[in-house]
Amino acid sequence: MALPPVYLSLDAAMSPKITVELLRQLRQAMRNTKYIAEPIQAYIVPSGDAHQSEYIAPCDCRREFICGFNGSAGTAIVTEKHAAMWTDGRYFLQASQQMDNNWTLMKMGLKETLSQEDWLISVLPENSTVGVDPWIIAADQWKNMSKALASAGHSLVAVQDNLIDAIWMDRPTRPSTQLLTLGLGFTGLTWQDKMTALRSKMAERKISWFVATALDEIAWLFNLRGSDIEYNPVFFAYAIVGMNTIRLFVDIKRLAVPTVREHLQLDTPSKVELSIQTAPYESVFTELQAVCASLGPKEKVWISDKASCALMQVIPKTHRSPIPYTPLCLAKAVKNATEIQGMKMAHIKDAVALCELFAWLEKEIPKGTVTEISAADKAEELRSQQKDFVGLSFPSISSVGPNGAIIHYRPLPETNRTLSLNEIYLLDSGAQYIDGTTDVTRTMHFGSPSAYEKETFTYVLKGHIAVSAAIFPNGTKGHLLDSFARQALWESGLDYLHGTGHGVGCFLNVHEGPCGISYKTFADEPLEAGMIVSDEPGYYEDGLFGIRIENVVLVVPAKPKYNYRNKGSLTFEPLTLVPIQAKMVNTDLLTQKERDWVNEYHRQCRETIGAELERQGRKEAMDWLIRETQPIA
Amino acid sequence: MALPPVYLSLDAAMSPKITVELLRQLRQAMRNTKYIAEPIQAYIVPSGDAHQSEYIAPCDCRREFICGFNGSAGTAIVTEKHAAMWTDGRYFLQASQQMDNNWTLMKMGLKETLSQEDWLISVLPENSTVGVDPWIIAADQWKNMSKALASAGHSLVAVQDNLIDAIWMDRPTRPSTQLLTLGLGFTGLTWQDKMTALRSKMAERKISWFVATALDEIAWLFNLRGSDIEYNPVFFAYAIVGMNTIRLFVDIKRLAVPTVREHLQLDTPSKVELSIQTAPYESVFTELQAVCASLGPKEKVWISDKASCALMQVIPKTHRSPIPYTPLCLAKAVKNATEIQGMKMAHIKDAVALCELFAWLEKEIPKGTVTEISAADKAEELRSQQKDFVGLSFPSISSVGPNGAIIHYRPLPETNRTLSLNEIYLLDSGAQYIDGTTDVTRTMHFGSPSAYEKETFTYVLKGHIAVSAAIFPNGTKGHLLDSFARQALWESGLDYLHGTGHGVGCFLNVHEGPCGISYKTFADEPLEAGMIVSDEPGYYEDGLFGIRIENVVLVVPAKPKYNYRNKGSLTFEPLTLVPIQAKMVNTDLLTQKERDWVNEYHRQCRETIGAELERQGRKEAMDWLIRETQPIA
Repeated sequence: MALPPVYLSLDAAMSPKITVELLRQLRQAMRNTKYIAEPIQAYIVPSGDAHQSEYIAPCDCRREFICGFNGSAGTAIVTEKHAAMWTDGRYFLQASQQMDNNWTLMKMGLKETLSQEDWLISVLPENSTVGVDPWIIAADQWKNMSKALASAGHSLVAVQDNLIDAIWMDRPTRPSTQLLTLGLGFTGLTWQDKMTALRSKMAERKISWFVATALDEIAWLFNLRGSDIEYNPVFFAYAIVGMNTIRLFVDIKRLAVPTVREHLQLDTPSKVELSIQTAPYESVFTELQAVCASLGPKEKVWISDKASCALMQVIPKTHRSPIPYTPLCLAKAVKNATEIQGMKMAHIKDAVALCELFAWLEKEIPKGTVTEISAADKAEELRSQQKDFVGLSFPSISSVGPNGAIIHYRPLPETNRTLSLNEIYLLDSGAQYIDGTTDVTRTMHFGSPSAYEKETFTYVLKGHIAVSAAIFPNGTKGHLLDSFARQALWESGLDYLHGTGHGVGCFLNVHEGPCGISYKTFADEPLEAGMIVSDEPGYYEDGLFGIRIENVVLVVPAKPKYNYRNKGSLTFEPLTLVPIQAKMVNTDLLTQKERDWVNEYHRQCRETIGAELERQGRKEAMDWLIRETQPIA
Repeated sequence: MALPPVYLSLDAAMSPKITVELLRQLRQAMRNTKYIAEPIQAYIVPSGDAHQSEYIAPCDCRREFICGFNGSAGTAIVTEKHAAMWTDGRYFLQASQQMDNNWTLMKMGLKETLSQEDWLISVLPENSTVGVDPWIIAADQWKNMSKALASAGHSLVAVQDNLIDAIWMDRPTRPSTQLLTLGLGFTGLTWQDKMTALRSKMAERKISWFVATALDEIAWLFNLRGSDIEYNPVFFAYAIVGMNTIRLFVDIKRLAVPTVREHLQLDTPSKVELSIQTAPYESVFTELQAVCASLGPKEKVWISDKASCALMQVIPKTHRSPIPYTPLCLAKAVKNATEIQGMKMAHIKDAVALCELFAWLEKEIPKGTVTEISAADKAEELRSQQKDFVGLSFPSISSVGPNGAIIHYRPLPETNRTLSLNEIYLLDSGAQYIDGTTDVTRTMHFGSPSAYEKETFTYVLKGHIAVSAAIFPNGTKGHLLDSFARQALWESGLDYLHGTGHGVGCFLNVHEGPCGISYKTFADEPLEAGMIVSDEPGYYEDGLFGIRIENVVLVVPAKPKYNYRNKGSLTFEPLTLVPIQAKMVNTDLLTQKERDWVNEYHRQCRETIGAELERQGRKEAMDWLIRETQPIA
């Protein structure tokens, strides 16, 4: 699934949300001393939740509630007279269609667009107060905003009661789904082992406490999963870990289940320091206050620098040690042997479903009855037949012809195109299985692709191979590999405006840190054997078609001829084993090495997926696989 | 010339400087109320000058004076009881040889080495005061140090009189060499044009004043050159530019020369706003104070964030607008047609000298009389015969066999090896001509290279070609090209521990910002047509040999088949035209495209340099050129 998303918007017919009354109520709340001691002149509504999750639960869709815009990124600000919403190029059209004329769309990335800070300074009366819910603004964002406002004589204040919640009458309740316990056969490490490893990292850096705020880190640490957020098997929780203490903050009701109690050893802890104290989700604030009140003069508390401002500020500055990547984030990224085995199994099952899908599509498309939506539904149906299927790992991007050029397209009834023999079909989809998470993109033509389509597909394939087959020294950061994916496109004057790869969780979030492959030089951590990332270059011709070839790949040791300074080398092993359509390839443009790579990849697909198709008795898919994995010349 | 230097030290026999008495005097000065109101407990001696120059004049070598270590990077700190000096891996050996046992060598980059801040905190008594000369510490460094010390209860203070100067009896005077005026034929733009362009950038960003502190920027702006610092044709100066004012701060004696007075129109300014007010170098502080005192409430002053703390702090915070790259730095980096023409001419002359040198070496080496030093001297002599030669652009790296593996090697009598038929010779050298600056590395074998030497040379060549022939979109930053230079080495498990390229000035510093090609993701600016950088991958086998192939290349528009989103593409054109030794190449390892590149490059060398050799009547060099540019199969 392409990351980071960049520029195109969902071209759908939508009617705007009417917000006159809501804005009136919100402005009233901004003056209501029930919520704030003094009236505030502006209120910021960010789009995240208290855990800075990429996907959020319905109860956290506050920005959508107030302005109508439901894209994944955007910040609304309401003043006494104005209402404005900032979003990026992907969403300009969608936002303009979903918001009524009480709202000004602030197009981020355009030169003439003011930043939130500059806009506030330009519209606010002197000495204004700007409010924000400190739980849903990240600590670093708070800091920047606060500084900018202060420099112009205004102040940023934390409003403890969320003012959107105050006027949101039918706000959904926070989900509290059943927790799933994962045994050693899936995790490879008990939560006790993980806790011990975390504590040894803390001891190494002389850290007394660690506050876990990211939902996937907490799920990973305790070997638990939930379904509070669609596509992401996580649950709302916090954890505070000391050298002899573990506090888990979660809806207490969820812990009544005997399997969960037993898994966490709530009733019979094996050791004192592995005894978990549970407390309600909401009590994390007061409990962290209590922890901080008892800190010795030199004690330090680790917390992610992306944690909420509310929690960050509980920790006195002298004790605070904010970090870009927590030890859990780093440990979670390097998969152990059991997780790797699980990811391989999940990818085999996923490939079975896709082979079956593509064989079915070949038969059905000529009838003119398959649409983007029905194809995606069929893919989900076939995946759901596989063992330990849990759900999709993100909304399927099922796109025909011009829709394929919309990088984060999601088919809607208004945009739904029919698959045909004349247009390219791009399917970017994935699933959650109890043993692993998948994410795969294949681009196919069911008729005769044009020379240009084949040419550009082949450049994308060359880029895909260049990354997948790259050998590089231990310690290399993923961003250094990004240009390999673009070299063939660049040589012909082409490019794509998204990154090349993202970290993938193991039965966890399909996007995870701290590694990735992107031209954006964010603070990515070096690649290590056991990390899992996507390799997904693309090419998009606006109004015509989109091409993307995506495999999930595992970082593995490589053994080249030499070993400079004993540093060792790494390369990638594809976990995704779904044939790449040879019909789309202009083989004249491939080097012999690239042809060999394709043939060896297809040999592996045939061998590994063939065996599983045979076991499952899926004859048609098997025939399709055999045909699609013939060696290319 | 390899940038950034990384790890190896000059393996030379040196005796340490005896510093007992000097340290006693410095510690006395640290308590002397003649210099400071209250005694200070530590004094920091950075290695830079007031302009953060890479190369410094003898009068600014204060760190060397106090501790004996004369490498290019290092910071000394003296407390009442301790003296410590921080430097990086290149210099561990050299520093340990040059410093006596009053000094502790702090090896940067090793895990166990404390940072300057942490070390100070660990050794200082409570509530200590640490002093530093605010003129030679950059504003951002001051900020970090000050913050770290404050968090531990100490304070950083500016000591206006430099305490090293106070005890340095025979300190050389600041150089004040004759100024050279450059006409339109060399610069392409008058200083008046440059001033107007600068002011239009200022107007665009609503900036009232600009403070120029970098010596190469001031030289470029006024079309003047000096020779105050070895290898760098700059002169000590500051400039303050307003919309109607130009103030140039320079040793006034230098302006007595009629050509300089006329060039700057000091006596007959054409327009009021182009009239230059000159003032003594030292008066920049008080003049900037005066400018700042008269600022309107919203007026902003541009200054480099790498300017000295002293000047930065003169500007009140509300008026300060620090920038990573000044408009002069950006304008200087994009060479105009005249500068490009000059650079081409300079490279032709430089290639003539090198062809002559290599032809001479072939004849002389078998006699056993040529050493690293004499070869470097011969290169200088041959260059000096060329028109408009000014001097070298950096100390020649002339290295035989194992010395070649020392990336920033400089031959000394103690290390001087004799060139032979058995060892690889690496020469990295360059010159300043009035029309341009050169920097070229060639690696040659005058006997029979081993298969391994040829293999690794060929990987380096493949990397050199991959960068030089790369096509990439407009707006691409140089660091995205760095991996292209390493791909062939990485595939065999090899690598090199320095960047791939640096910006090159036009009759200015051989290292300049804001562009470069490096795996270090510093804030480099996107490459643009007209920029000039080096392309210099290498491979170093400790104790055996070093290989580097370096050309200076010009960024030029490319015209690939397509033009994605009308962005346009770029590529490189080599300015350096010196044959690459075919004997060192294992042609089996080259692709057809790479062989074509080599043959086309050699065709250009033969055509362009051949014509000039003919014109200069250099018959032996011509024969050598013809032989060395035979097409490879």
